[in-house]
Amino acid sequence: MRQRILTGDRPTGPLHIGHLVGSLRNRVALQHEYDTFVLLADVQALTDNFEHPRKVRENVLEVALDYLAVGLDPNVTTFVIQSQIPEIAELTMFYLNLVTVSHLRQNPTVKAEIAQKGYGESVPAGFFVYPVSQAADITAFGAHLVPVGDDQLPMIEQTVEIVRRFNRLYAPVLVEPRALLGEVARLPGLDGKAKMSKSLGNAVFLSDSPDEVARKVRGMYTDPQHLRVEDAGRVEGNPVFAYLDAFDPDRERVAALKAQYQRGGLGDVKVKRHLLEVLEAVLAPIRARRSEAAQSMDQVERVLYEGTTRGREVAVQTMTAARRAMHLDYFGTQPTDPTTTRRDASGSSG
Amino acid sequence: MRQRILTGDRPTGPLHIGHLVGSLRNRVALQHEYDTFVLLADVQALTDNFEHPRKVRENVLEVALDYLAVGLDPNVTTFVIQSQIPEIAELTMFYLNLVTVSHLRQNPTVKAEIAQKGYGESVPAGFFVYPVSQAADITAFGAHLVPVGDDQLPMIEQTVEIVRRFNRLYAPVLVEPRALLGEVARLPGLDGKAKMSKSLGNAVFLSDSPDEVARKVRGMYTDPQHLRVEDAGRVEGNPVFAYLDAFDPDRERVAALKAQYQRGGLGDVKVKRHLLEVLEAVLAPIRARRSEAAQSMDQVERVLYEGTTRGREVAVQTMTAARRAMHLDYFGTQPTDPTTTRRDASGSSG
Repeated sequence: MRQRILTGDRPTGPLHIGHLVGSLRNRVALQHEYDTFVLLADVQALTDNFEHPRKVRENVLEVALDYLAVGLDPNVTTFVIQSQIPEIAELTMFYLNLVTVSHLRQNPTVKAEIAQKGYGESVPAGFFVYPVSQAADITAFGAHLVPVGDDQLPMIEQTVEIVRRFNRLYAPVLVEPRALLGEVARLPGLDGKAKMSKSLGNAVFLSDSPDEVARKVRGMYTDPQHLRVEDAGRVEGNPVFAYLDAFDPDRERVAALKAQYQRGGLGDVKVKRHLLEVLEAVLAPIRARRSEAAQSMDQVERVLYEGTTRGREVAVQTMTAARRAMHLDYFGTQPTDPTTTRRDASGSSG
Repeated sequence: MRQRILTGDRPTGPLHIGHLVGSLRNRVALQHEYDTFVLLADVQALTDNFEHPRKVRENVLEVALDYLAVGLDPNVTTFVIQSQIPEIAELTMFYLNLVTVSHLRQNPTVKAEIAQKGYGESVPAGFFVYPVSQAADITAFGAHLVPVGDDQLPMIEQTVEIVRRFNRLYAPVLVEPRALLGEVARLPGLDGKAKMSKSLGNAVFLSDSPDEVARKVRGMYTDPQHLRVEDAGRVEGNPVFAYLDAFDPDRERVAALKAQYQRGGLGDVKVKRHLLEVLEAVLAPIRARRSEAAQSMDQVERVLYEGTTRGREVAVQTMTAARRAMHLDYFGTQPTDPTTTRRDASGSSG
């Protein structure tokens, strides 16, 4: 059996070229080597967007389109909507017994995010416990590997601790995951800030039109000291060159442009025009696949339905084993869910 | 429609005469007036017994026998095993977004329990969030009323806060419960301590044999100054008289015994012998019904299965409405749980 990977995104906005470099390209490459599950983590998105459920709902579909657009293939990759997997919530509740409040408080990732969001002590409890919820995501699907950057290692460590404790206390039913550390490139924002993100308003989205991309590239931050074409310019901290590093396949050309820029004699307008061409070479086929997929949303829904159904099968297996290990296997299995019915053939959806 | 009540117990041990006075008698009286759900709260029991899942499992059956023994009638009262209702875990996860960590920290009941158990900061996260989990219990079943003592009012207040916040943010789908405050008598322990509890080893269980009850009554704490029959004795803080107050239907006789004890001339042996008679009058029929029920555990399991199935129907309705309100109603409904099957007719259980 192929090893299983779990990846995913919080559907709080459409994906951007930072995601492409940071995770999506990697997933597309890995999907043929590993049994890949991608989680549209809408429940987790709600932990800090609970006042905006409609936004999360809309972005589940946007992110699904982005996945299809970049080449995640639903024939080999399983798309799962998190909120449709009750077993994740159940596992989370049991895992919460295995972690102390002070341990959660010390999680470096959560600590940093609480500070960044200015929550202080008024952090919503759902956000506070999300590392436990992530452990449930990973283990519900029996993932062997989780592709992460090294900033996310504490999350994997938390999961491993929970798995070991559960398996020792009850029975060895959970798969202990490992981090699949890759070179995770982080793309700076259009404004030169360290991180591209929707909330900072400094992102090029995979769904942007050519005009939008052109407008965004024209307005990019460069070297503020580089005023005239003949001036020497800096390439460090200059997002135009960071993007060329990330997307221009012609390494020699990039090196030559950098040298010329540093020496003087290469204007921002010209180098941005080149960047736009490079970006369009990447984005045009993505955009084409995206708009093709968006033509038949029925098909997208079918992909989500079939992936979620397969995901649920795996999660139910895990939960059945976990339930048995904890001596909670009453009535042989759970009572039948009386209102659950197979989706009707018309494909209608709420 | 009759108003619905939710009550229940954490199945961490068999029930005792303190439960009889504190809640069980009241439930038996209320069950004909209200649509009563009793929750065997095994998931909550695990929050501070997660290392002893087998103990919790065994006590689910013990507590079910206790319920039947005291006269909870499965024809009018719905017995529900909490762990078999995944919707409670799902609701808990969504409610956790609506409560802050500092608010949970200030919950007086949790605060007292954390201090009592000596947890400090190393309180398990599952225990820390249990008021949110209780809000999910109450609302999953759409309870209008929760019979509580006034020490549990903070729990109802927490639930009401969550309900109001949810209904305002999403849609008015949750029933706002009210406390049904009753005179909740608290029986002291056999040792005179304020509380009777299994963990303090000072309880008379509903399942105790006549010999065990006799032995326990003989060993009861009384007034330590009351050494000879002719000495004056104290009835305040004397559990023998507290039990007579709780169980002897002949109020005049109790008043006469108290007067004689205070005056001098009534020995502990004699008053304990009377108490034993009074207790046996209460316990003998309970014991008889208990041992009759224990003869056919298949039937007890059927009661649990049928109650849990009915409970699940109600919880699924609540979850369906909550899911729609949060825009999480994908695919019309949830994907079918592929491994769930109706319990087979043989009645076998794990």
